[in-house]
Amino acid sequence: MYDLIIVGAGPAGLSAAVYGRRAGLNLIVLEKAAMGGGQVLNTYEVDNYLGMPGIDGFELGEKFRGHAEELGTVFQKGRVTAVRDEGQKKIVETADGRVLEARALILASGAEHAKLGVPGEETYRGQGVSYCATCDGAFFKKRDVAVVGGGDVAVEDAVYLARLCRKVYLIHRRDSLRAARSLQEKLFSCENVEVIWDSTLKEIKGSDLVEAVTIHHIKEDREQELAVDGVFIAVGMRPNTEAFRETVGCDERGYLIAGEDCATDVPGVFAAGDIRTKALRQIVTAVSDGACAVASVEQYLDTK
Amino acid sequence: MYDLIIVGAGPAGLSAAVYGRRAGLNLIVLEKAAMGGGQVLNTYEVDNYLGMPGIDGFELGEKFRGHAEELGTVFQKGRVTAVRDEGQKKIVETADGRVLEARALILASGAEHAKLGVPGEETYRGQGVSYCATCDGAFFKKRDVAVVGGGDVAVEDAVYLARLCRKVYLIHRRDSLRAARSLQEKLFSCENVEVIWDSTLKEIKGSDLVEAVTIHHIKEDREQELAVDGVFIAVGMRPNTEAFRETVGCDERGYLIAGEDCATDVPGVFAAGDIRTKALRQIVTAVSDGACAVASVEQYLDTK
Repeated sequence: MYDLIIVGAGPAGLSAAVYGRRAGLNLIVLEKAAMGGGQVLNTYEVDNYLGMPGIDGFELGEKFRGHAEELGTVFQKGRVTAVRDEGQKKIVETADGRVLEARALILASGAEHAKLGVPGEETYRGQGVSYCATCDGAFFKKRDVAVVGGGDVAVEDAVYLARLCRKVYLIHRRDSLRAARSLQEKLFSCENVEVIWDSTLKEIKGSDLVEAVTIHHIKEDREQELAVDGVFIAVGMRPNTEAFRETVGCDERGYLIAGEDCATDVPGVFAAGDIRTKALRQIVTAVSDGACAVASVEQYLDTK
Repeated sequence: MYDLIIVGAGPAGLSAAVYGRRAGLNLIVLEKAAMGGGQVLNTYEVDNYLGMPGIDGFELGEKFRGHAEELGTVFQKGRVTAVRDEGQKKIVETADGRVLEARALILASGAEHAKLGVPGEETYRGQGVSYCATCDGAFFKKRDVAVVGGGDVAVEDAVYLARLCRKVYLIHRRDSLRAARSLQEKLFSCENVEVIWDSTLKEIKGSDLVEAVTIHHIKEDREQELAVDGVFIAVGMRPNTEAFRETVGCDERGYLIAGEDCATDVPGVFAAGDIRTKALRQIVTAVSDGACAVASVEQYLDTK
């Protein structure tokens, strides 16, 4: 029986491994694919992890993993299909039929941005296609960009980008926005934002980098091409919590309900990183969660 | 009038500068001394900031500052003596008589560990003397250490170190501990912890590194020397909040009351890093706060 099983090898899981190993805990990290690492590995450039300006996402992910390895972290490949709470003992089941036991768990399997599934989306990911305005907006200063979506995040992204970019198109498939009224007011006061209503994004085009998008105007059934340097897709996130939902409390969107201390409604089970309910999902907030989750694990184990 | 004034140039303030600059905010960082940077600059080695294993504290501090500078952050020297809330306008006064104005403030001037003020304490800081078991405990694996204090943090530190070290002495000036009962039970169950009651630490001795401490047994009025490789001083922290206490809500220990979103009880004034009420004060939790505080600043400015 381990002291701690960490599910997920992204920034939150790896930070938890570093703090856990330094605290002398007997732990393993379970990752669904060999050389996991989370969304950061697919990020073209990261410029907001303090101390490492403009680092390549893959390189940053390797540094994160190397740090955990240097402290003797053991990684095991295994896709988790269920966790069970048996009080002093927590059970983790994997797709290949293994049953692992630990005194405590940190669930850190992250979240994924919903995709549009249009031509060019995968091709230009990190070459003009982004799922995070806070992360990547600064790369598009004084350029023209499109945002796709109509919820709070899409409108926040458009307002954020309006301060940096020359022109922002907000492409939304309906004739009204779902976003909060106050956000909409802010949006409509931005002179360099143009909302393109009743329209879907059909294709993202370019050469090495994004150069244009093709829009389909639904009501008029006609297509239009817009010249843009960047496309920010904000059509929702999906937390990777399918395996945990029967055991751990979730909000209506599927995130594990946990505060800054990462404690869920199950004693001894903690949620760290993008997987938990929080306001800002960034690499550094995930790394911070890894540290906080281990501090909570230690407190929990100290009372057992 | 600036969009944002950040008070303090430690990890929280510098991370806020990076996020703020990338968001296009017109901001300055005020630091009380030229080349501020916070406690990290005086740390011998940092091994828990993910991605930078075993880095020298001064070097890490320089990297942090360099990152903020690279994004065009303007630093101003100035010790803040007061902040005032005038609604849409926040006023910052400095010791040299300047009066600065911004639409929002991030207070990130940190906290300081209380010192014992004994011979050897400054000399061996980072050479065996530490104020943070979570940060530095792993450097003392299988060695003998002393912890000084009797509160929750001292007892938590002793329990933490007992898992890593060969022998842990807990030196306390009274004949009972202030720490929570559950923590005390855990402490007394650790076989390699020896509590030295009614005693004060008189001196820390060594050559290049710490080798021993001299203890004064108060009731018997006699001295004793203990051979140890490390001394963890846990006699309290003092947040640097003197200038803010009249304006912003504090807890009984002087920390600014703020949650994960860094919002204080004054709209538009945010608290980031060690200065705010939180469970775990680490470099990465401060860096994370810098990001969260800027997200909150942006939301606040968007509604004005």
